[in-house]
Amino acid sequence: MTLRDIGEFGLIERIHARFGGNPPAEPAAEPAAAPAAQTPSSKVHPAPSSSAALGIGDDCAVIERPGDLLELVTTDLLIEDSHFLRDAIDPRQLGRKSLAVNLSDVAAMGGRPRAAFLSLALPGEIELDWVDAFLEGVDERLSESGVELLGGDTTRSKGLIVIQFTILGDVERSHLKLRSAAQPGDIICVTDSIGDSGGGLQALLDGVERTPAVEQLVRKHLDPRPHLAEGAWLGSCRGVHAMIDLSDGLESDIRRIMERSHCGAEIEVSQLPISSELQEVSAEHRWSAWELAVGGGEDYALLCSVAPDLYQEIAEGYRHGLGGELHAVGRVTADGVGNDPVYLYEGRRVDPTRRGFDHFRSE
Amino acid sequence: MTLRDIGEFGLIERIHARFGGNPPAEPAAEPAAAPAAQTPSSKVHPAPSSSAALGIGDDCAVIERPGDLLELVTTDLLIEDSHFLRDAIDPRQLGRKSLAVNLSDVAAMGGRPRAAFLSLALPGEIELDWVDAFLEGVDERLSESGVELLGGDTTRSKGLIVIQFTILGDVERSHLKLRSAAQPGDIICVTDSIGDSGGGLQALLDGVERTPAVEQLVRKHLDPRPHLAEGAWLGSCRGVHAMIDLSDGLESDIRRIMERSHCGAEIEVSQLPISSELQEVSAEHRWSAWELAVGGGEDYALLCSVAPDLYQEIAEGYRHGLGGELHAVGRVTADGVGNDPVYLYEGRRVDPTRRGFDHFRSE
Repeated sequence: MTLRDIGEFGLIERIHARFGGNPPAEPAAEPAAAPAAQTPSSKVHPAPSSSAALGIGDDCAVIERPGDLLELVTTDLLIEDSHFLRDAIDPRQLGRKSLAVNLSDVAAMGGRPRAAFLSLALPGEIELDWVDAFLEGVDERLSESGVELLGGDTTRSKGLIVIQFTILGDVERSHLKLRSAAQPGDIICVTDSIGDSGGGLQALLDGVERTPAVEQLVRKHLDPRPHLAEGAWLGSCRGVHAMIDLSDGLESDIRRIMERSHCGAEIEVSQLPISSELQEVSAEHRWSAWELAVGGGEDYALLCSVAPDLYQEIAEGYRHGLGGELHAVGRVTADGVGNDPVYLYEGRRVDPTRRGFDHFRSE
Repeated sequence: MTLRDIGEFGLIERIHARFGGNPPAEPAAEPAAAPAAQTPSSKVHPAPSSSAALGIGDDCAVIERPGDLLELVTTDLLIEDSHFLRDAIDPRQLGRKSLAVNLSDVAAMGGRPRAAFLSLALPGEIELDWVDAFLEGVDERLSESGVELLGGDTTRSKGLIVIQFTILGDVERSHLKLRSAAQPGDIICVTDSIGDSGGGLQALLDGVERTPAVEQLVRKHLDPRPHLAEGAWLGSCRGVHAMIDLSDGLESDIRRIMERSHCGAEIEVSQLPISSELQEVSAEHRWSAWELAVGGGEDYALLCSVAPDLYQEIAEGYRHGLGGELHAVGRVTADGVGNDPVYLYEGRRVDPTRRGFDHFRSE
């Protein structure tokens, strides 16, 4: 029997069975790997036997430390041809993006990233210009984020580029946001328009004409911004319960909240924040903008659930503090364990069409 | 221009130039990648701009933390066909070894490993038996070492297995041992017989007859033991100055001490601890046991430099506390910056034959 026969969930189940803890719920659907896409890989945070760690099955592992701060750790492995194609992404953007997706995991816990470690395997025949541009992208993103590169290792590979980041961060004990903390009645919010990255990927796959709006979507896909200030700000709000970053798409990521919080979710798709660029390009090419918003991944906005009585106050503070909107897009419901998220369009139920992806089965 | 043209040192120089700090001295020689060998990759610890980190260019990055303990972080990336061949190492041993070499880095700082994160990329066609045996090996080594697996990620690869460990550990502030702390006059010591792993690799490469002595050398090569108790014990000794683990061989690793401590080194090869098995197999096959001890890598014993006036006391305490020998094999000298280590055989200078290896140039 091979790995493909049991799929990724089977592998994660096996790891959990061996290293302790209950198996996690089935991983949510992920967007299909595509030329310019970095398919996020599945996080495994088995339950440890000691009480040293919290946040099992979350964006980061959480480690108990003396003092007010908890430590956050996240690791991610990106492999050429599985997560990116060398010819489809500019190396500077690859450097920026491969770091950004990891920083986003720390933001999703309400914390701040502090230190990065980069393991890099490169084939000997790679052009130095490529290496320099990649490092430049990493450097830019580190500087923008106030994160230091403290170490790592370099090694030779026979052909494929492998990029691995480990990020250490910290979060004040009272600011930690877990996927498991959503409560029925909570307002579901997102910190940015969503679907742009999915639209950008679609544009790349379809090779559509590069209008300014298309360029903007492609840029959002290739160079996503980790919502660090937003994550830290939302972390400081008591009324923010659960949080996650939108790496795999609303459909997939809301399921992770549902599984960990044992709740359901209703999304009012007319309230999904769709950028004017996505509206324009979707109209032009007859795409469904809301299906891209629901099913497309890699927006790296944050999704959080907010106590309903505190939502107005928090949204106002967010607007004043960060200059953006905390978009309310639905609510957490009590029922729904094992169910699908419910999508409503002006009160009428609708169904998204994109579903289901498993790393090992879909090769 | 390609990466091969500038070699691994050129790459590391570039990373240092970009991310701060002085370029490190040229990386020491490493053993050639071979069928069953895991060629250790080169650690990059650029100097950070803040004072949050010590131990630049050492086995681990060292991060300042509140309280008595400093945090240690090490990461390592192993790629099939570059670091191991799937058919040449048993998956259980691969699991044990890939973790062991990382734990050894923490021991070399005088610390204790606490938590491990495993990123694993596997091709869909891999047999589940392989996966299970690999995880079993990881699990065994974790249990033996008192280390918890706290997270990581799994992903699909197209063909090659990629294994990446990040290890977090800690060390009491006063126990931290750096490569830069050797002082002229110090006694150079090793915590075990050396050369066995190199002999085991040679036996595998030559396909020699598997006598019991050969089996023992091969076992030392395929399943090295990280010297965790030894590292923690030596960490607690004030008279122990510099420490490093013997991953790349005495010749390479003593150079790292010399570079970081701005000193020289004399090794008395008649004092190198050579196991009876290596003596027997070397005699049988006309290998030079001492050249294997000097040039062969992957012993994962610790090498440390000890204040001469405290050596007797420390060696005695080591014998009582750990039941083994702290073998004196040479001494640190004042001169030697930019020089080679000096090898003496009963006072007469000799030269080892194995030198030089660069990841990117020797493909």
